[in-house]
Amino acid sequence: MKQFLEESKKISHEIASLSSAIKTKVLNEMADALLQHCDYIITHNDIDIKEAKKNNLSHDIVDRLLLTATRVESMSQAIKEIAALKEPVGRILDGWVTQDNLNIQKVSVPIGVVAIIYESRPNVTSDTAALCFKSGNVCVLKGGKEARHSNLAIANVLKEVLAKNKISTNAISLLPDSTREGVAKLIKENKYVDLIIPRGGAALIKYISENSSIPVIKHDKGLCHTFIDKDANHEKAIEIVLNAKCQRPGVCNAMETLLVHTDVAAYILPPLYEAFMNEGTELKGCDDTRKYINIQCCEHEDYDTEYLANKLNIKIVKNVDEAIFHINKYGSGHSEAILSENYSTVNKFLDIVDAACVYANASTRFTDGGSFGLGAEVGISTNKLHARGPMGINDLTTYKYKIYGNGQSRK
Amino acid sequence: MKQFLEESKKISHEIASLSSAIKTKVLNEMADALLQHCDYIITHNDIDIKEAKKNNLSHDIVDRLLLTATRVESMSQAIKEIAALKEPVGRILDGWVTQDNLNIQKVSVPIGVVAIIYESRPNVTSDTAALCFKSGNVCVLKGGKEARHSNLAIANVLKEVLAKNKISTNAISLLPDSTREGVAKLIKENKYVDLIIPRGGAALIKYISENSSIPVIKHDKGLCHTFIDKDANHEKAIEIVLNAKCQRPGVCNAMETLLVHTDVAAYILPPLYEAFMNEGTELKGCDDTRKYINIQCCEHEDYDTEYLANKLNIKIVKNVDEAIFHINKYGSGHSEAILSENYSTVNKFLDIVDAACVYANASTRFTDGGSFGLGAEVGISTNKLHARGPMGINDLTTYKYKIYGNGQSRK
Repeated sequence: MKQFLEESKKISHEIASLSSAIKTKVLNEMADALLQHCDYIITHNDIDIKEAKKNNLSHDIVDRLLLTATRVESMSQAIKEIAALKEPVGRILDGWVTQDNLNIQKVSVPIGVVAIIYESRPNVTSDTAALCFKSGNVCVLKGGKEARHSNLAIANVLKEVLAKNKISTNAISLLPDSTREGVAKLIKENKYVDLIIPRGGAALIKYISENSSIPVIKHDKGLCHTFIDKDANHEKAIEIVLNAKCQRPGVCNAMETLLVHTDVAAYILPPLYEAFMNEGTELKGCDDTRKYINIQCCEHEDYDTEYLANKLNIKIVKNVDEAIFHINKYGSGHSEAILSENYSTVNKFLDIVDAACVYANASTRFTDGGSFGLGAEVGISTNKLHARGPMGINDLTTYKYKIYGNGQSRK
Repeated sequence: MKQFLEESKKISHEIASLSSAIKTKVLNEMADALLQHCDYIITHNDIDIKEAKKNNLSHDIVDRLLLTATRVESMSQAIKEIAALKEPVGRILDGWVTQDNLNIQKVSVPIGVVAIIYESRPNVTSDTAALCFKSGNVCVLKGGKEARHSNLAIANVLKEVLAKNKISTNAISLLPDSTREGVAKLIKENKYVDLIIPRGGAALIKYISENSSIPVIKHDKGLCHTFIDKDANHEKAIEIVLNAKCQRPGVCNAMETLLVHTDVAAYILPPLYEAFMNEGTELKGCDDTRKYINIQCCEHEDYDTEYLANKLNIKIVKNVDEAIFHINKYGSGHSEAILSENYSTVNKFLDIVDAACVYANASTRFTDGGSFGLGAEVGISTNKLHARGPMGINDLTTYKYKIYGNGQSRK
């Protein structure tokens, strides 16, 4: 493990220095190679699928695991899109001349060695490998063990393209020991690995955050709220909250708790109830809510739960301050929305709510790299530092200062 | 401890929302209060000084610990300068309209609760408290135990100003348990503390980096190099390397190893030797170096040592590639310089050397917030993420996305 990571670190300087033209050429060749070797990939995916069925994994997991010709085509297309992204390395982020006449440039550079830990979907292997390569980083990938044959096949196809272009094939590699013990060792190798990105279950993320000596960018849960203010446009409000909950309930930017201003509860809760019933949403409410609509009682722990399902808590609050207080207490700092036509109320909410994305009059479902226009995304960070919210390819870079002098010494 | 940090977190939303005008007013009052209570501070500092002498602490430490009227005046002046900095919160870092006609603003916001762990100098207490307050953060300060009476006196003076302005006095606080056990507890409270900044000894920084479940921005060692290329201007080169080593040898941006291109070693080493002898510098050299000048032999471990003293290693390299290889192997990613008039050699060095600050034809001694023109500095980060190199007040902020819609739902 140590030797493997040492090698990754060693070649990171080579990968960081690749020209934009080479990186783009190699990525386009990788996209083509995935199509050419589609059968090879699907054959290996088949082994994973058979094992998964044998092990009685859920239908949902088997579906996420499955690769078809269409899905391999999408993977190829995704790499082509990443190849076409604007070069993330070498952007001049800032620049100035100092009192000593030094010319300072703050320039984006690759992070170095990035380890990504994820679960069943094999397309994450090609997506993240391509994002890391485009941004000049060496990646160490640790996918779910249920997808290991698929991931190995995909990595082999990508590595072959690297070899053909005389680039160190370890620029893209799978963690050699993908057991729990392997991960435990990985997260202590801070001399060789610069960043760990865990995407996956809450337990895994907690374990890594608490035990890693390497900086971690978490892709943790989304416990998102929407607040219908007394000055909300009711028609828009109903449409937005339905979208935030029901358009795709199983994702991190879906709403888990709806907060309703007490002044409008009587008017808005009955039509909301009708609308949610049509969507088959399971509703729970606070005592005040249950005066207006006949739903289950919401317990304190429900406010703390990311349902990832078509379930919703409803709570009546007396004003925007109580809404903000509830959100800052229970929210996971992901995405929070206010629906209101009142200028000051909206500004207060956007200023004080502590989350990566705060929305006025729109669905929280827009929190992702694609909707934001960032291109292919690494994920959605719930960290506060370095990268917060949707992580685009630029977030896979850091910076250095280049300082141009002409003989200056310090006085 | 937990209760104390929970309280810090709770009030962080209040501190984050303070207006720029209030923060500036309060900081100016703090600067005045330090002057008014100068005797009170010096009296308490006296207790620390007496204890330090009783405990036979080094003359150096006692001097760092000592507060005089002039030093308290400097502390006051530093707060006034921080008060006058441009408001770091609410800067619009980026902004665009998406395909769904959402108006996205990327806005700087405070980090939240920042814990700073430092050593003997009591002025760090007022400096960092002021920097955190100006940037809307709650700070938890853990100074050296040898300075505890001084730090408490300073914190009391600052807290009194907060109280007078009806701001929660816990916006600035000292860690209640400042023992090792207290620090061990602190670094696990990731629910309440958003960032740990350790400034101090290597052992402390290593311990915190390896055990904290909270993001850490290290202010670690500086193992800095200067490379004299074959195309260097000799006169400038001698002046710059003397400055890099001798102007203040005990600091992190001073040079520890000088690399010399083999083609110019015969010409430049003898006059360099003379110059360093005049400065009383202790020189060590590789075998090749010792063919030209009569100095001690440099061992491998010397290349790995931050001397923080008037000592220097000299090594002859055959070209810029060997210089870069040596630096990327032994450097600590702090500050590295090339002295050369050759366009391509300079660019290669600045591109490939992996460090926070890479210099062409200037002394590494310029790496600090003041010289960079960033104003008062939090320190010099040796992290690769979030903040790298000199950390100004803007590095005490993160960002959120404010998204302005007019009824959008996701398709």
